[in-house]
Amino acid sequence: MDFEAYFKSELDAVRDEGRYRIFTEIERHRGAFPHATRYVGDTTQDVTVWCSNDYLGMGQHPVVIDAMHKVLDECGAGAGGTRNISGTNHHHVLLERELADLHHKEAALLFTSGYVSNWAGLGTLANRIPGCVVFSDALNHASMIEGIRHSRAPYKIWEHNSPEGLDRHLSQFGPEVPKLVAFESVYSMDGDIAPIAEILDVCEAHGAMSYIDEVHAVGLYGPRGGGVAEREGLMDRITVIEGTLGKAFGVMGGYIAASEKLCDFVRSFASGFIFTTALPPALAAGAAASIRHLKASNVERDRQKDRVATVRRRLDMLGIPHLPNPSHIIPVMVGDAHKCKRISDWLMDNHGIYVQPINYPTVPRGTERLRLTPSPVHSDGDIDRLIDALSDIWSQCELARRAIAA
Amino acid sequence: MDFEAYFKSELDAVRDEGRYRIFTEIERHRGAFPHATRYVGDTTQDVTVWCSNDYLGMGQHPVVIDAMHKVLDECGAGAGGTRNISGTNHHHVLLERELADLHHKEAALLFTSGYVSNWAGLGTLANRIPGCVVFSDALNHASMIEGIRHSRAPYKIWEHNSPEGLDRHLSQFGPEVPKLVAFESVYSMDGDIAPIAEILDVCEAHGAMSYIDEVHAVGLYGPRGGGVAEREGLMDRITVIEGTLGKAFGVMGGYIAASEKLCDFVRSFASGFIFTTALPPALAAGAAASIRHLKASNVERDRQKDRVATVRRRLDMLGIPHLPNPSHIIPVMVGDAHKCKRISDWLMDNHGIYVQPINYPTVPRGTERLRLTPSPVHSDGDIDRLIDALSDIWSQCELARRAIAA
Ligand SMILES: Cc1ncc(COP(=O)(O)O)c(C=O)c1O
Ligand SMILES: Cc1ncc(COP(=O)(O)O)c(C=O)c1O
Repeated sequence: MDFEAYFKSELDAVRDEGRYRIFTEIERHRGAFPHATRYVGDTTQDVTVWCSNDYLGMGQHPVVIDAMHKVLDECGAGAGGTRNISGTNHHHVLLERELADLHHKEAALLFTSGYVSNWAGLGTLANRIPGCVVFSDALNHASMIEGIRHSRAPYKIWEHNSPEGLDRHLSQFGPEVPKLVAFESVYSMDGDIAPIAEILDVCEAHGAMSYIDEVHAVGLYGPRGGGVAEREGLMDRITVIEGTLGKAFGVMGGYIAASEKLCDFVRSFASGFIFTTALPPALAAGAAASIRHLKASNVERDRQKDRVATVRRRLDMLGIPHLPNPSHIIPVMVGDAHKCKRISDWLMDNHGIYVQPINYPTVPRGTERLRLTPSPVHSDGDIDRLIDALSDIWSQCELARRAIAA
Repeated sequence: MDFEAYFKSELDAVRDEGRYRIFTEIERHRGAFPHATRYVGDTTQDVTVWCSNDYLGMGQHPVVIDAMHKVLDECGAGAGGTRNISGTNHHHVLLERELADLHHKEAALLFTSGYVSNWAGLGTLANRIPGCVVFSDALNHASMIEGIRHSRAPYKIWEHNSPEGLDRHLSQFGPEVPKLVAFESVYSMDGDIAPIAEILDVCEAHGAMSYIDEVHAVGLYGPRGGGVAEREGLMDRITVIEGTLGKAFGVMGGYIAASEKLCDFVRSFASGFIFTTALPPALAAGAAASIRHLKASNVERDRQKDRVATVRRRLDMLGIPHLPNPSHIIPVMVGDAHKCKRISDWLMDNHGIYVQPINYPTVPRGTERLRLTPSPVHSDGDIDRLIDALSDIWSQCELARRAIAA
């Protein structure tokens, strides 16, 4: 087989569909987020980032940066080993305690990313509990899906955010069958939020374990940033809460929080936890500082809410279609891969506004979008420039405007 | 099902086998490696680490630490997004260039860890090349095995380090079948090295792609630290070279280096690459600095060789059994999980010497061992203390001494 020719033909097919990804190369400026320098070949351009998942700008917060400098100087760059073989640093243990406390769980277990925590966490539970059947929300993230697939446990996909659908699926299995229900709180591409209480009612009626991905919610929701389940007073009813340290907390890494036994079980059996170098101590310290800060401070969350509401209101005034949802995510719908990319390019080239086009496989074909994530670091001026530019391109492209609001 | 009771019973079974893992909690001291503080409850102890995979002590090298401080100040803590959605930092691109150059390949692709690079790299190639059959060395690392399993491609396991075995397996498939051969250069638990040239001869005779894991070799072997394949002048004959940034380079992250098309293919289709937050820019900068340094400097490699030879010689003089091998890894064989743990505990409690016992599933049952990794940062005094302590415990435990060497 001519492997190179095969790779080329597959890449050409992606290109023909308009969904070949050219990564935008930037350098974010600490202290000046959302501002960044974009690199294109030998030239650079000043840009404003409107699509970061550093949702609260914690990636430049002094408490995070200072903690990282300090531990970098104290402990060095890397952990130097897997968790079992010399890689467990004091700062990992402190962070795991911080996370257990955040979610009011007995324990927490750290992974190198949210992706790996889902893949290894779900994969290990589903694979290692004999006869386990997994019930997965239809819109679950790739990392959960891969974990479930990898486990080779039988699984059922239930209708997105439907407790009734879940109940129907669960009812097909007797009480003797171990059941694991996996879903998210905030779905990152539509920004909708799961009916967690109703889902938990169903789980409990069937004696199923519940596993929630709060990756797009931790730090952002709840009085201490424990996520939507904290806000709704539901954390103690959930078996496993999974989260990331790479989005609202601004650093990198992932985790599960659960009972001491469950965490110990995953710790002891998950290949993706055992056989990999541990997170650098400085990252653990930075994440712990970020979590601690957001447990006590609502300033960032309040200002984010204000920014999100402002952008929504301004979009509505222009009739620019965005998916209504109760979260901090604003999906501006375009519905065509080529067009989405063209708008994004135009915003970048003419206004230095960086909003990545989101296309298949991240979202279904025909629902291509620009996903805006307003954050505390976006100023009124940033918002004005965004809205003016969007208004301009929307008329140029003759994209359907909704009836002008208010 | 009573999940908690199930977890408990499984953990008890592990405990009964003597292979329940209690992580040693340490704080390495930058500037004073291999020295560290160990935490046990409320007390601490000074320890010397003898089992780190920060093989050259680069985790405390000023060029690495300085690069990380600098980029932490310039770009902030996290990347702020996935590679496609605002997370591609200038420093990722520079690092990928550095890696491509290191291995004399057209391109390189960065992952969050070596584990993920193997899992996603092998998984994507094996799954996405129609009809692909994988040929995996019998002792391949968990991350490769999981990637191959995850791909659901058919696979054959060939006898460890046997080109003849590989040839036999490959011969069972016609020239029309796409073939992918996966193996390592340095096997981390036995420290043996693959006959790379002979394996490549076989691959080429069958038109198979070759995929080598050089995780325990990059930075350490070859005139520029390109690995065993560089040392043997074989890099250009290998399709994919995979490595980590978390061992000899002292930081964290993983990569593949290969043709531009192959890297673009994996970049475009690998779930584990696409759907996860990118590495913090400061880690990318630290790793790039480490690679650059080790391309030019042999001081660290030379001193490591000297340290390894010294420890081996001293062990031989005492007749302490260690697996002979041509690498930097010294496995001191014990052969019993309980005994291995007792020796390790004794070394720690009485001498502050930290060598993690290695047991199943990392190595086969009955081959439990203490795995020593002498590095440039171990002084003559450190070696004296290690050898004296080992001598002492070896007589106490009446462990078989081999005939005294020389
Ligand atoms: C719902 C969801 N879960 C998990 C992840 C993975 O988390 P991480 O970026 O920390 O790997 C992501 C995105 O990256 C996500 O959107
Ligand atoms: C052979 C081998 N490949 C890959 C890995 C994973 O690399 P990383 O630690 O960067 O995840 C390891 C160990 O951790 C390993 O021993």
